[in-house]
Amino acid sequence: MADASISSAGPIDAGLLDDLVAASRILAQHGVLDAWGHVSIRHPSNPERYLLSRARAPALVRAEDIMEFDLDSNPVDQQGRRMFLERFIHGEAYRARPDVNAVVHSHSPTVIPFSVTGEPLKAISHIASFLVHGCPCFEIRDVGLTQGLLVTNNKQGAALAKTLGDKPVALMRGHGNLVVASDIPRVVHRALYTEVNAQQLATALSFNRPIHYLTPDEAQDPARLGDSWDVWKHEAMKDG
Amino acid sequence: MADASISSAGPIDAGLLDDLVAASRILAQHGVLDAWGHVSIRHPSNPERYLLSRARAPALVRAEDIMEFDLDSNPVDQQGRRMFLERFIHGEAYRARPDVNAVVHSHSPTVIPFSVTGEPLKAISHIASFLVHGCPCFEIRDVGLTQGLLVTNNKQGAALAKTLGDKPVALMRGHGNLVVASDIPRVVHRALYTEVNAQQLATALSFNRPIHYLTPDEAQDPARLGDSWDVWKHEAMKDG
Amino acid sequence: MADASISSAGPIDAGLLDDLVAASRILAQHGVLDAWGHVSIRHPSNPERYLLSRARAPALVRAEDIMEFDLDSNPVDQQGRRMFLERFIHGEAYRARPDVNAVVHSHSPTVIPFSVTGEPLKAISHIASFLVHGCPCFEIRDVGLTQGLLVTNNKQGAALAKTLGDKPVALMRGHGNLVVASDIPRVVHRALYTEVNAQQLATALSFNRPIHYLTPDEAQDPARLGDSWDVWKHEAMKDG
Amino acid sequence: MADASISSAGPIDAGLLDDLVAASRILAQHGVLDAWGHVSIRHPSNPERYLLSRARAPALVRAEDIMEFDLDSNPVDQQGRRMFLERFIHGEAYRARPDVNAVVHSHSPTVIPFSVTGEPLKAISHIASFLVHGCPCFEIRDVGLTQGLLVTNNKQGAALAKTLGDKPVALMRGHGNLVVASDIPRVVHRALYTEVNAQQLATALSFNRPIHYLTPDEAQDPARLGDSWDVWKHEAMKDG
Repeated sequence: MADASISSAGPIDAGLLDDLVAASRILAQHGVLDAWGHVSIRHPSNPERYLLSRARAPALVRAEDIMEFDLDSNPVDQQGRRMFLERFIHGEAYRARPDVNAVVHSHSPTVIPFSVTGEPLKAISHIASFLVHGCPCFEIRDVGLTQGLLVTNNKQGAALAKTLGDKPVALMRGHGNLVVASDIPRVVHRALYTEVNAQQLATALSFNRPIHYLTPDEAQDPARLGDSWDVWKHEAMKDG
Repeated sequence: MADASISSAGPIDAGLLDDLVAASRILAQHGVLDAWGHVSIRHPSNPERYLLSRARAPALVRAEDIMEFDLDSNPVDQQGRRMFLERFIHGEAYRARPDVNAVVHSHSPTVIPFSVTGEPLKAISHIASFLVHGCPCFEIRDVGLTQGLLVTNNKQGAALAKTLGDKPVALMRGHGNLVVASDIPRVVHRALYTEVNAQQLATALSFNRPIHYLTPDEAQDPARLGDSWDVWKHEAMKDG
Repeated sequence: MADASISSAGPIDAGLLDDLVAASRILAQHGVLDAWGHVSIRHPSNPERYLLSRARAPALVRAEDIMEFDLDSNPVDQQGRRMFLERFIHGEAYRARPDVNAVVHSHSPTVIPFSVTGEPLKAISHIASFLVHGCPCFEIRDVGLTQGLLVTNNKQGAALAKTLGDKPVALMRGHGNLVVASDIPRVVHRALYTEVNAQQLATALSFNRPIHYLTPDEAQDPARLGDSWDVWKHEAMKDG
Repeated sequence: MADASISSAGPIDAGLLDDLVAASRILAQHGVLDAWGHVSIRHPSNPERYLLSRARAPALVRAEDIMEFDLDSNPVDQQGRRMFLERFIHGEAYRARPDVNAVVHSHSPTVIPFSVTGEPLKAISHIASFLVHGCPCFEIRDVGLTQGLLVTNNKQGAALAKTLGDKPVALMRGHGNLVVASDIPRVVHRALYTEVNAQQLATALSFNRPIHYLTPDEAQDPARLGDSWDVWKHEAMKDG
């Protein structure tokens, strides 16, 4: 599948690679990524390329593990490295969403109960106001199974991206979620607070009272994610 | 907005600053403060001034980050530092409550479900007996939105302080809470045990049995917070 | 109240003191003891004396903090040290229960919801089979309040011991629990697994199905607590 | 019971012993094994022998603690070491299941509520798709009690193995579970994700909506457990 003619979009700024590694470690440290799952970014020099780690547990990813892919998820230069089976999630998300520069696929634990019940996962906290319109839920059977519930080809990846539509988060039934944003800090923020909002909403639902969800006019794009990014990165990287 | 004519109330005792930093770290370590939220104290030399960190994640706050503000939340000497957008919560709480010398604003996770359902958050544990009269819940729409559910000006801050009334804790719908006390150890104790009591009450409610809440004659102001403060500070500051 | 004529039962073996300190640290590390709560042992040389730390957060207790008390909870030699206000819980438990040599008073978090609802806290796990007969619940109002729900004198302590009867654990409404055993490892085991069983039972109750509690013939006194004690102590003391 | 005539199946590869130790530490670190519970492997040179630690808390197991047993759970060379009372769980699982080379017995906390209510523990997440056919639940009273709910002889062990049948996981009522697999990484994966799936299912059930469980055609044996094993082992062993 790899095509020797795929050209590289060129070297990446070390600071950006460092942030991509940090994103992986942060999401692992907070329990949003388990031993699987992945974070990618669109190549800053070429929108037809993205950057994603070789197959490796998120907590262990290092800058030298980052590989370059085209939007069909072919590697630019595989060098014999094993690749994530589900990288097609990333390629198709970048293809479908020109506004997106960072993608997370996770097994965020409290997302699963929502994905298998149809209970709407909508924002009840302003920090998760990106969820104000709810999360569409991807049913992989609608496009056809290959390996269990895994997304293993572009067709499935494209169907997932279609389910996502213009939203920031799609649930994947019995599997996890897809989270997209314009940059790394935002995609990390969204992945973290999708989980937190899911936990809080599960508690709120247990009270058996009407829930006051956020309304669209209350949603707010956080102006300053820098402060939160600083502490997340500091905590995740302090042990080297 | 900053006014060059605002005078400083003078230097602060290093031990007090140290405790203010510790308060921020303690609440972060216990998960009451996430990457946002803040702790302030009233200036010990001038009740018209308060002390609050520059915009920075609570776990990273250091003594040199502490700034001085007047009760309109104008900085005494900004020196180009970014300020918390929601500092008006603090200024108006100090203005409305002469008995208050320490203020916390948090996204305390288990407070959110109570804030969006109307389920009363009242004390079921004697350590949280400060909640015996329940927590009023602030609805920011009653005063008007500016940026999502954030409190970004004195008018909103004053409305929140009015909702708080003479209580130690007010919930903020879909957002978090405001916690006030006479000193740092007490405000930390209250912020921590509002969260703990919320978790315990959520479990108690799940039993579908009548709840035996504390009654006013059972409420008790802890005589010795020193012991708890010692261990909270020790644990939060041991890594420097 | 301290009486100069109270004689000491003599020095304690250093290993036993070390275990008493470890018990305090273990229960703090596992979240059963918060910044308050305490562990004591009966003096091995005189059943009319017991050993308990000076007032200090459990995670910070050291061997040199241990004081000796008579069963009225008078200190043998106070040396100006502050004492736990609730030490009467210990003195009266030792008085009422000659079989008991170790006592814990805790705010074990998941015990509170049971204590304020009347939902029976009974064993569903064989590791908590000491709870097979359930936990009586102490209502301090029956004997009269002094300081909130705190046990601050021998009369209240004796009433609590009476509620305990011949059981290993009594709940204290809106407050926590009293746990007793024949030795330190057993009292730690019981305090830890009262909390674990409470958490598991809360989950089981949420299923809205009949619960299969342990029956008395299934209860078993663990023959070898040594293995568990070893790891609990190792983990709690490894940072010195 | 130990028989001097039982011959050893010979030395074990150091790397395999290292993985067995790591398995024990990993499951302790993730809270699936508490101060009790154990992991074993079938001897690679002789299917009639298995390897299991001497009696010791899982977090403290070292390579030199590993002992060899026959399938009746007699030690090959006891050397005075204390043995796990419940080792018969392992011997009988290996006897009944030639396909099994690794066995875990745990008190996995969230398994208990399912075991005492009859609520089916079935896969809702693809990472736990090994649970797609549900978990049979062992009732020790059907074969007769010896010491509480513990499995202390081959007869009880055989009855448990019979309940397990051809499944990967059996619940043990009021006690925990038995987890089997073809190798160490897979048995660790199954033990970990039985707990995770149980937690997620408990949350899903709380929504009072129909649950979309995985179907058999969606189950998938993870092709690459290597990545997850790497990070689990790295995290569990990094402190030596």
